[in-house]
Parts: sequence; structure tokens; C-alpha cells
Amino acid sequence: MRYSQLFGKTSKTVPSDADSVNAKLLTQAGFVQKEISGVYNYLPLGLRVLTNIQNIVREEMNKIDGQEILMPAMTSEEGWVTTGRNTMDVLFHLKGQGDSNLVLNPTHEEVVTPLAQKYLFSYRDLPVAIYQIQNKFRNEVRAKSGLLRGREFNMKDLYSFHTDETDLNRYYEIVKKAYFEIYKRIGLGDITVLTFASGGAFSQFSHEFQTLNDNGEDTIYLCPKCKVAVNKEIIDSQKTCPECGNDKLEAVKATEVGNIFKLRTKFSEAFKFVYSDAQGKEKIVEMGCYGFGPSRTMGTIVEVCHDNKGIIWPSSIAPYQVHLIGLDLFDDKIKSQAEKLYQDLLNKNIEALFDDRLDITAGTKFADADLIGNPIRLVISKRSLEKGGVELKNRNEESSEIFSLDEIISKIVH
Amino acid sequence: MRYSQLFGKTSKTVPSDADSVNAKLLTQAGFVQKEISGVYNYLPLGLRVLTNIQNIVREEMNKIDGQEILMPAMTSEEGWVTTGRNTMDVLFHLKGQGDSNLVLNPTHEEVVTPLAQKYLFSYRDLPVAIYQIQNKFRNEVRAKSGLLRGREFNMKDLYSFHTDETDLNRYYEIVKKAYFEIYKRIGLGDITVLTFASGGAFSQFSHEFQTLNDNGEDTIYLCPKCKVAVNKEIIDSQKTCPECGNDKLEAVKATEVGNIFKLRTKFSEAFKFVYSDAQGKEKIVEMGCYGFGPSRTMGTIVEVCHDNKGIIWPSSIAPYQVHLIGLDLFDDKIKSQAEKLYQDLLNKNIEALFDDRLDITAGTKFADADLIGNPIRLVISKRSLEKGGVELKNRNEESSEIFSLDEIISKIVH
Repeated sequence: MRYSQLFGKTSKTVPSDADSVNAKLLTQAGFVQKEISGVYNYLPLGLRVLTNIQNIVREEMNKIDGQEILMPAMTSEEGWVTTGRNTMDVLFHLKGQGDSNLVLNPTHEEVVTPLAQKYLFSYRDLPVAIYQIQNKFRNEVRAKSGLLRGREFNMKDLYSFHTDETDLNRYYEIVKKAYFEIYKRIGLGDITVLTFASGGAFSQFSHEFQTLNDNGEDTIYLCPKCKVAVNKEIIDSQKTCPECGNDKLEAVKATEVGNIFKLRTKFSEAFKFVYSDAQGKEKIVEMGCYGFGPSRTMGTIVEVCHDNKGIIWPSSIAPYQVHLIGLDLFDDKIKSQAEKLYQDLLNKNIEALFDDRLDITAGTKFADADLIGNPIRLVISKRSLEKGGVELKNRNEESSEIFSLDEIISKIVH
Repeated sequence: MRYSQLFGKTSKTVPSDADSVNAKLLTQAGFVQKEISGVYNYLPLGLRVLTNIQNIVREEMNKIDGQEILMPAMTSEEGWVTTGRNTMDVLFHLKGQGDSNLVLNPTHEEVVTPLAQKYLFSYRDLPVAIYQIQNKFRNEVRAKSGLLRGREFNMKDLYSFHTDETDLNRYYEIVKKAYFEIYKRIGLGDITVLTFASGGAFSQFSHEFQTLNDNGEDTIYLCPKCKVAVNKEIIDSQKTCPECGNDKLEAVKATEVGNIFKLRTKFSEAFKFVYSDAQGKEKIVEMGCYGFGPSRTMGTIVEVCHDNKGIIWPSSIAPYQVHLIGLDLFDDKIKSQAEKLYQDLLNKNIEALFDDRLDITAGTKFADADLIGNPIRLVISKRSLEKGGVELKNRNEESSEIFSLDEIISKIVH
């Protein structure tokens, strides 16, 4: 993509209402634009990152036999009345034709349970795991922190259905592993820890995935040995590490980037969701649910991966792998070499953002590259060509190196 | 995918409220499940088709320099008050925190115009074309016809911004061509015609893309020579073919599958969206908008592509290319050959749905394959193996042929 033509440029103006690093950097770098409090537009750069995260999540869900479906955002209030959750304060209510009571779903247990019930009847139909990637709605009293707490936000929600608790437990552990694989792939693996949280009425614990960072809104109590934590909300009842019994837990700040629950029979009982076992006897279905917020995670990554110049995207989710800066492009010879390099990158399927602007200073182009944060910066200019070719610098390193035009591609494709 | 494990099986029961061929077949074949009137769940098969259509649309939009963004479904009512469209009867209204007035957008001119205004200032920033693929909401008095008229439905909406009418006209013709390319690729090319419709206050005409079919809800007047049509709504003022002047137009039924408008300055004036020309003079931006409904088109394809046994998907958007039926699988030797064939298909990246069910009759498996409508049916059974291999039959043909296990893959990959 040519930066000259990209919709959504960088801005030097700090958004007056940006209350977080991610809101500030993502807005200034041209990734998102706030529509109203807690509701964002994704510009081309921002949508590329969101899509990259979604695709990694999708791959990992497919690997554990998750089947992708798509449920509606808007449904009847009926299911929520059935479970008694229609009074939940974050639920958006609206009126349809004929004065019908509709809601915008902040989570989909009330939709997925009756849906699964239409297709799953026998023990032979189980287990099943279905998920969707879709926008959800929460009428937050105070939306805040950029993409971290939104009123409309993107979610992956997986639901699993089982014959019994043993099978639910088996699959729950598989999902746990898949989540860690996701965090590893998107660059948060080393600083994301399993955190024990309240299990509600049916289970002892639920589990959160918490990314350690000083700006985190949650406090968790970390066991330095096991790298698992206990959420503050249950620290009074669970004072020691649930894995090793260590009672020297350290209070640290973290951001929740995923949560998984054993719902057990909470929703299947509400909807009377039963199956026939091998003896033809009716039994209640056991359920699990597994949430992951791609938009919230995108915000968290920025909170963690940045410096005072801008964002530093992990390569796996970066909008482009290469940020190619062309300087001195008024010189036809340099311009044609820069254009050829850009074409070479495209021909090798290397995603490149080419700053081909003529009327912009070198300083501004460098600042924009740092702000946007693609992993590899290439500079082609009069000076670089005199030195022998193209300057390569990684966003997360200080030093740069010159490579010839012939060898530069091989330095990028590993 | 193994059909035994697929979420969303076929059903013999005709949905009591299915008022259209697409609602009936898509529900019975396990592609969708109605949530409430005009709102559908997409099961794995249905989501695959929807995604295939979206990807073709995305490719064609990218080819004409459309940049993908994502705007929110939920915004403030403010933009709609600015344009005076807040009284539109299909607009869903809801209340946010602090008694704020929110809407669910049925179209995004009120969002995209102020958004574009934040980034486009100069003639050098234009033209720009931005699009999104996203769910929209319309509070229809009477949602009907399955996926054809929904309350929550999927849309691709492209918006273009230009310095003047000439440039808008130039791009409008480019989009027109891209739309015909889309219809060609998804299998509706031969029966989809450009239809002149009302242009509103600013333009003489807008254009619809209408797919000819007897169940269509629109009446259009077709010029048999030019293969363009005039929508009934303007036939009193436009009695002849707009291209050749022919006054022998034929009234036919059709379904609208796309529409494009020259908005001209209708929205840019409402939002005072101006740019600086080369002389630094303020000028008003010219706009076009271009709608395409992936979910509506999915329904239309079923209306057109079916027989009395089920759906006949065009290959480009089919959920799977191959429907592999295994029979006599209680015989270990046949089962292992069927499993090997399934693996061979997967290894060759051929998308295959493998009906590996043990407790289902051959007749039911054949009926399910016809109902689901994948393009190529393979049958491996005791009988087929005795005849020399695997039976291949195309969904849209009557005859079948036997190929050896060694050559069958080469008959599918062309």
C-alpha cells in the first residue's frame, strides 16, 4: 500500500479525551477513530491488525475442533427472561415492530443454548464446540481505556457441549492450551498468566488470562514459581497458589485478555437442554464457554508493546511487515529504484507500506514509521544508495544496516 | 469435514413459517436457523457460503482501490438528525447511558461522511474509496423471504469521495464493471441486469443490479436487445430503454442484488464536507455509494439455483467442492479406502464434506447430498469398488461415471 493513498494518516494532535496509551497511539497513528464513547471506527491499518488477531484465533479454534458459526447481535429478550439475566445492567434493550422486546447480546449463552438444542439430541451428537467472531454490545456506565472497555467490541466466543463433567473438564484443558498458543502467537505469551477467578454457583473457579502490565486495571496475586495467579476478587477465600500452595503471592497489575468458564448446567437447566444417553435415558447437557476479545487484545498489545515514539507491533499481527521509506524521490533515478524495490516486495508477497510522499520531510517520515510501528523499516535514499543500497532497521532495535538492492529481499524473508 | 461431526444437520421438516424457497431449503439443509423474524443464525455450512461471497466481493473491491475499514453498527443519533433522516421508519433507536440517543445503522452515510471529513482536506487527498463488510439493521415492518429482507443482515457498502462530478462519474463506471465481475464470479452473471431506478434529488438515475427470476419481488422492464432494464418505480417517466431508445420493453420479475447511487453533494453539504482545490479555494466533495448484500445475495442464489431435490451451489461459493458419500462402512476394507480417499482430498486442498455416518441409509445420504448441493458428489461403496473405483456425479447433471481410486483426484482438480 502506498502511504500517500492510505485512508487514515497519522496525526500530531493528541486526542483530548484519550485516557489510555492505546487510545492515544492507535488514534494518532491512524488505526482507529472514536465514534462515540466506547465505540470505534477501524481505519485500514487498524482493521488489518484486528483481522490478523481474528485469523490466529480462528486457526487455533479450528485446531481444537471448534466449528465456526455466526449468531445475530440482535435477538428477542425472551431467552434473557428465561435465564433471569434480562435485568443485567449492561444489556441494551430496544423495541422492534409490534412493540417486541429486543436486546443486543453482550454474550450469547441465551442464543447458543436454544440453538444447539435444535440439533443435539443424543450422546452420539456430543461433544460439540461452536464459536463465532462477532461484535458484541454492552451498555457500560463508563466506557474507557480505548479498545479495552467498549460499548461495541469484537469478541470470539466458543461454547462447548458435553455428556458429563469429565468430558467438559477434558475439553476445558484443551481450550486452556489453545489460549496459551494464541497468546504466544500474538506476542503476549511471556507475560500472560492463568489467573484463578470466581467460578460462580456451579464451579470452584473460572480462569482468566491476564497480561501483566503496569497500566492494567486488575490486581492479581502472582505465584512467582508457578506463574499462575489469583484474582483479587477471590483472594480472601484463596490466599495461596492453587497449584503449589505457596502463600507468598505478589500483587501485580494486569489486563484481562480472555476468560473461560465451566458453565456446567446453569444454562442447559434453564432451557431444559437434555440428551439421551446410551440407555435412552434423559440427561442434562454440560456446557463450557470461552471468551477472547480481539479488539480488547489489540488495545492490550499496544499498552504493552510501545515506546515513547509509538507502537511496536509483534510481527504476527503487524499491519504490514515492512515500512518502506523513500526519500529524495524528486530524483527520477532514486524514485525508479524505490518503485522497483516496492514492486519486488509485493512480488515476493511481503506486505509493505510504501511512504512515497513527495512533500514530506525525512524527519516526519521517520516519526510516522516509528508511530505506526511495523516491524521492519527500510529506507531508500540518495544517502543509502551512496552507501551501497537500502538501510534496514528493526522497529525494536536501535542499530541499522545497509544491504545491497540485490540482497535486501533475502534479509527480510527468513 | 466429517458430516457425522458437523453442527447443523439436514431436516425433513419444512419450517412452518418458511415463506420462500431460500428460507425453506437453507433451513432444511442446515445452513441457517431463524432466530426471530428477519434475523438468522448461520450454521457452519451457511457461514462458509456467506464467507465465500464476502471474499469475492472483497477481492473485487480491493481491485478497484477500495480500502477496507470497519465502522460501528451502533452510533449516536446525531448524524441522522443532521441529515434529517432520523425519522426514517426502519431506523432502530435505543438509549445509551446518560439517556443518550443511539441508533443501529441501516446504512452508513451518516457515519462515513464525518469520518472521511477528518482525513480528507485537499484535492491531493482525493479520490478515495472506502468500504466495509458488516451487519446492518433495519426495523422492517414485515421481514420476509428468508435472507432476502432481514432486520439484521450482512452488507458490503462502499463510499467514494471525489473533487468533482466528472471524477465521480469515472469511478461510478468502474464500480459498475466490478459489480458485473462479482455477479459473474458468484454464478449470477448471465441473469443479472443493470436496471435504471430513481436517482433521487441529485441525479437522474441510480442503478440496481436485478437478478431475473420468477419469484422476484420487483417488476422491471427489460430491453431484450441491450439487456438493461427500467425499474417499475420510474417506468412512467422512462418508458423506453435508456440505452437504445427501444420502446418494446418486457415486464419481468427480478430480485435486487445490488444498488449504486451518485449521492453527489447530498451528504457532503449536510456535513459541510469541503476540500481545498489547487488554488486553495474551498469546494464541496462529491460522493458515490455502492451497496451489495452478501446475505441477500446468498438467498437469491438459492432462489435461482435449486431443483426439487435441493440447492445447486455454483462452485465458486459452495460450502464444499466435494460431497463424499461413504457406504457399506461397516466393512473395514471399504471404510479404510473411504478414509484414504477423504485424506487424499484434504491433502490436495480439496474442500470435502465426508458423509461417514454408519447408521444412515444410502437413500438418506443421497438425499442429503442433493439437498445440501455441493457441486461434485463422490460415492465410494461396495458396488462402486466392484465397478472399479469411485462414482463421480456433478450436482447439476444426471449422469455419473466411475473412476479408479488412482485417477479420481485428477478428475476433480482441473
